Amino acid sequence: MKSLTARELAEKLQGRLVGEGGIELRGPATLEEAQADAVAFYANPNYATAYAATKAGVVLVGRDVTRDNGACIQCENPYASFVTAIEFFRTRPVHTAGIHPQAVIAPDAVVDATACIGPFCVIESNARVGRNAALHANVFIGAGSTVGDDCVLYPGVVLREDTQVGHRVIIHSNAVIGADGFGFAAQDGQYKKIPQVGIVIIEDDVEIGANTTIDRATLGQTRIGAGTKIDNLVQVGHNVTIGKHCVIVAQTGIAGSTSIGDECRIGGQVGIVGHLKIGNRAAFGAQSGVAADVAEGEIQSGSPARPHSVWKRVEVALPRLPDLLRRVRAIEEKLGINKVNGK
Amino acid sequence: MKSLTARELAEKLQGRLVGEGGIELRGPATLEEAQADAVAFYANPNYATAYAATKAGVVLVGRDVTRDNGACIQCENPYASFVTAIEFFRTRPVHTAGIHPQAVIAPDAVVDATACIGPFCVIESNARVGRNAALHANVFIGAGSTVGDDCVLYPGVVLREDTQVGHRVIIHSNAVIGADGFGFAAQDGQYKKIPQVGIVIIEDDVEIGANTTIDRATLGQTRIGAGTKIDNLVQVGHNVTIGKHCVIVAQTGIAGSTSIGDECRIGGQVGIVGHLKIGNRAAFGAQSGVAADVAEGEIQSGSPARPHSVWKRVEVALPRLPDLLRRVRAIEEKLGINKVNGK
Amino acid sequence: MKSLTARELAEKLQGRLVGEGGIELRGPATLEEAQADAVAFYANPNYATAYAATKAGVVLVGRDVTRDNGACIQCENPYASFVTAIEFFRTRPVHTAGIHPQAVIAPDAVVDATACIGPFCVIESNARVGRNAALHANVFIGAGSTVGDDCVLYPGVVLREDTQVGHRVIIHSNAVIGADGFGFAAQDGQYKKIPQVGIVIIEDDVEIGANTTIDRATLGQTRIGAGTKIDNLVQVGHNVTIGKHCVIVAQTGIAGSTSIGDECRIGGQVGIVGHLKIGNRAAFGAQSGVAADVAEGEIQSGSPARPHSVWKRVEVALPRLPDLLRRVRAIEEKLGINKVNGK
Repeated sequence: MKSLTARELAEKLQGRLVGEGGIELRGPATLEEAQADAVAFYANPNYATAYAATKAGVVLVGRDVTRDNGACIQCENPYASFVTAIEFFRTRPVHTAGIHPQAVIAPDAVVDATACIGPFCVIESNARVGRNAALHANVFIGAGSTVGDDCVLYPGVVLREDTQVGHRVIIHSNAVIGADGFGFAAQDGQYKKIPQVGIVIIEDDVEIGANTTIDRATLGQTRIGAGTKIDNLVQVGHNVTIGKHCVIVAQTGIAGSTSIGDECRIGGQVGIVGHLKIGNRAAFGAQSGVAADVAEGEIQSGSPARPHSVWKRVEVALPRLPDLLRRVRAIEEKLGINKVNGK
Repeated sequence: MKSLTARELAEKLQGRLVGEGGIELRGPATLEEAQADAVAFYANPNYATAYAATKAGVVLVGRDVTRDNGACIQCENPYASFVTAIEFFRTRPVHTAGIHPQAVIAPDAVVDATACIGPFCVIESNARVGRNAALHANVFIGAGSTVGDDCVLYPGVVLREDTQVGHRVIIHSNAVIGADGFGFAAQDGQYKKIPQVGIVIIEDDVEIGANTTIDRATLGQTRIGAGTKIDNLVQVGHNVTIGKHCVIVAQTGIAGSTSIGDECRIGGQVGIVGHLKIGNRAAFGAQSGVAADVAEGEIQSGSPARPHSVWKRVEVALPRLPDLLRRVRAIEEKLGINKVNGK
Repeated sequence: MKSLTARELAEKLQGRLVGEGGIELRGPATLEEAQADAVAFYANPNYATAYAATKAGVVLVGRDVTRDNGACIQCENPYASFVTAIEFFRTRPVHTAGIHPQAVIAPDAVVDATACIGPFCVIESNARVGRNAALHANVFIGAGSTVGDDCVLYPGVVLREDTQVGHRVIIHSNAVIGADGFGFAAQDGQYKKIPQVGIVIIEDDVEIGANTTIDRATLGQTRIGAGTKIDNLVQVGHNVTIGKHCVIVAQTGIAGSTSIGDECRIGGQVGIVGHLKIGNRAAFGAQSGVAADVAEGEIQSGSPARPHSVWKRVEVALPRLPDLLRRVRAIEEKLGINKVNGK
C-alpha cells in the first residue's frame, strides 16, 4: 500500500475536504474496521451509527454531509470515489516483462516481449500471448490458443488447444477453458465418445472465476460475450453462447447448446438445461432450475423456475398446505362427502 | 484438420454419393455454420429449413433423402456416420513418446517407453504408467498409483497415492482423484480427523470431467465402474461405488458410502445422500435431491426426489395453491365454518 | 502399512485381548472386507450379521462383547479405538525436509529448514512457510502469504498473495484461497471491477477440500475459524466469516459478507445468500437455500429454507396436492359454487 495525505486524496477525487488536510492515509477500510490512517466511505443512511463511531482518518461522504469527529471529503458519489481511491492506494503485483527461465515455450509460439510468463508455465505450439499479458505460475496454454493484450491468468489456469481469449480478460486460478464437451452417443448400452472438435471464444473484458469450467464446442464455438463476469465453480457446457455484460454467480451450471442473451443476471447455484433460448436482460434467482425458453426481461425463480411473482405467492402459500388438508377434510365431513383417495 | 474429397468420404463411410465427387472437404460443421469446404449432417426433419439453406459442400443424409442445391451422401444412420467422419478429419494432438526433461520421475516409478510425459509432471515412487498413456503438463501421479494403457490425463490432473486407473481412461484438467474423504469424529465439540487410508479405483473406459473430485475411501475402495462418464465439477464422496456405463452430469454430488448400480443416468446438480443403494438403470432429473434407496429402473425428480410422474403432477398443481387457499376460504364462509388455525 | 501382533495392539489400545495374541495384523478393514491379517471393529448391533461372519484376525468390540470364531479386543469405545488403531498402522507419506531443486523460492521468502517443498512449487516474495509444513508438488504461495507449522498443502493448491494460514491446516489439491471476490459496480450497462484488496485468514486446525474456493475480501478479511472442516467444491465468497468448529459439506456456496457462527453444520449443496447472520450451532439440511438471518441453534431445510419441522410437514403434504385440487372441485360442485379462476 502506498500513502497519501487527506489533501492529496481530495484533489485526486476532485472532492471538497472538510477538516485536517495533513492526515496520512495508508489505505481503504470499512467504517467499522478503519483506523486513523484509513479512508472509509459513508453513502447509505443505514450505516449512520457506524459513521458516527468510525475511527477513520477521513470519510468520503455526499455533497451535503458533515462529520462531527474528524475529517471528511464531500463527493458527488462517495461509493464510486471510494472505488477510485482503492486504486490509488493499491500496490499492484509487479508483472515484470519476460519469460521465466523455468517456463516451457514452443519454438513457434509467439509471446509479446512485454508479456510476463511465470515459472512452470507451458505455452504450446502456435499459441500467441499479447502485450502486457501476465501469466502467473503453472499456467497452461494449449496449441493454437491465443491470449489477448492486458490479460491476467492466475496460477493453474488451463486453456486447452485453439481457445481464443480477447483483451483485458481475467481468469482466476485453476479455471479450465476448453475441456471436451460432455457428448456421448449411446450404442448397445455403452457410451461412445463424440469427438469435441469445436473451440471456446472468450471476448474482451470477461472475468472468469476460480475453478470454473467452460467446455469446448462439439463443433463450432462455445462463446462468452464481451464484459460478462463469471464467478467461481461455474459450469458452462459445450456450444453454450452467453451474451455481453452478463453476471453469473458461483456454482451455476448451463447445459450444452443453450443461448443466453445480453445483460442477463443469473444467481448462484442456478441450473439451466440444454438447448434453451434465454432473452436479453432475463434474471434468475439463486437455485433456480430453468427448463424452458425465457423471454426478454423476464425474472424467474424456483425449481422448476416460474415468473418471480408466481413463485413468491406459491412460496408464501406452501407452509399453509398441511393446514389446508385438515380444513378440506373438515369440510368434507360436514358435507358427508365420501373421500375416495384422500386419507 | 486434414482434407478429403466428397468421393473419398463416401467410400470411407460406405455411403452413396449423389453429386459432385471432387469437392474438397476440410472438416465437419453444423448445417447452419457449414461453408463449401465442410460436411454437415441432416437426420431430424425439425432441421428441414436449415437443410434447405445450408452452404455445406456435402451433407450426410438418410437412404432416401435427396438434396436440391448440392451434394449429399446417403447413409444408413447419418448421425453415426457424421461422428465417424469427425474422426477422419481430426488432427489429434500429437503425443510424442518420451519423458519431458522437465518432468520429475521417481527412480522406482515405471513409465512405459511408449508413454508421453509432459513438462512439470511429477510421478512419485512406485507409480506405473502404461503403454501409449499421455500425461499432459503439470500432472501429478502419487506414490503407488497406476495409470493404464492409452489413458489421457490433461494438464493439472492430480492422482493422489495408491489410485488405480484402468485402460483408455480420460481425465480432464484439474480433476482430483484420491483426496482424503470427508470423515471426522466429533469429540468434545471439536472434530478429529479420521485417517483416510482407502483408495480409489477407476475402471476401464471411464471419462472424468474437469475439476471433478473423487475422494479416496476411509477404508477399502471408492470405485467408478467401466464405461461410466462423469461430467465437470462432480463430487464423489469416500467409499462410493458407481456401476458400469452410468452417465453423471455436471455439478452432481454423491455422498459417502452410497452405491449406484449400472447404467444409471443422473442429471446435473443432483444431490444423493450417503449410505444409499441406487438400483441399476435408475435415473434422476436435474437438481433432484435423493434421500432414500431407489429401486432398479426407477425415474425420480424433485428435492426430495419422488417418482417422476408424482413430481410432475405436483409441479403442475403447485402454481394453483394460492388460488386453492382462496377457494377453501370461500367454501368455509359459505358453510359458516369457524377456522381455527387458518388466517 | 506396518505390522503389529494382536497382543501389541491390545496393549497400545489399553484393551482386553480375548483369544490368540500372536496373530499378525497388517492393517484396518471393515468387517465385510477384513481378512485374517486385518483388524476390524464392531460397535453397532445393526452389523451383528457381518460381525458373526467376518474373517478379521481381530475385532475391536465393547467391554462385554465376545466373539465365537476368533480373537477380539474389548475396549471402552471400539470405534474411537479403531480410529486410533488406523494411525498405528498408517505409513504416512514421507515429507523429507528440504526444498526440491525444481522449486522456485523468492530470495526474501522464509522457509523453515524443517519444511518440505515439492517440485514445481513457487513461493513468492516475503512469503513464510513454518516448521514441518509439507507443500506437495505444484503448490503456489503468493507474495506475503504465510503457512503455519505442520500444515499440509496437496498438489496444485493456490494461495494468492497475503493469505494467512494458521498451524496444522490441511488444504487439498487444486483448492484456491484468496482469488478476487466477485465484486463489480454497474455503470452504464457495463460492470466495472471493484479492486479486491482484502485478504483471507485461515485459522488453526482447519481442513479445506479439493477444488474448494475461498475468495479474498474486498476490504478487510474473509475468515475461516479454528477447527472448521470444509469439504470439496465449496464456494466461500468475499468477506464471509465462518466461526470455529463448523462442518460444511461439499458443493455448498456462501455468498459475500455473510457471517456464520461457531459449531454450525451445513449439508451438501446448500446455498446461503449474502449479508446474513447465522447464529452458533445452526444447522441446514442438504440443498437448503438460506435467504434470511438464522437464530442460534435453529435447524432449517428446504429452498427457501424453513424450520426443519415445518419443512417436513410441507414435504409430506405436497404429494397430496393434486388430489386436494380434485376434492375441492367436488365440494364446489356439490355446493354449486361458481369458480372464478379455477379450471
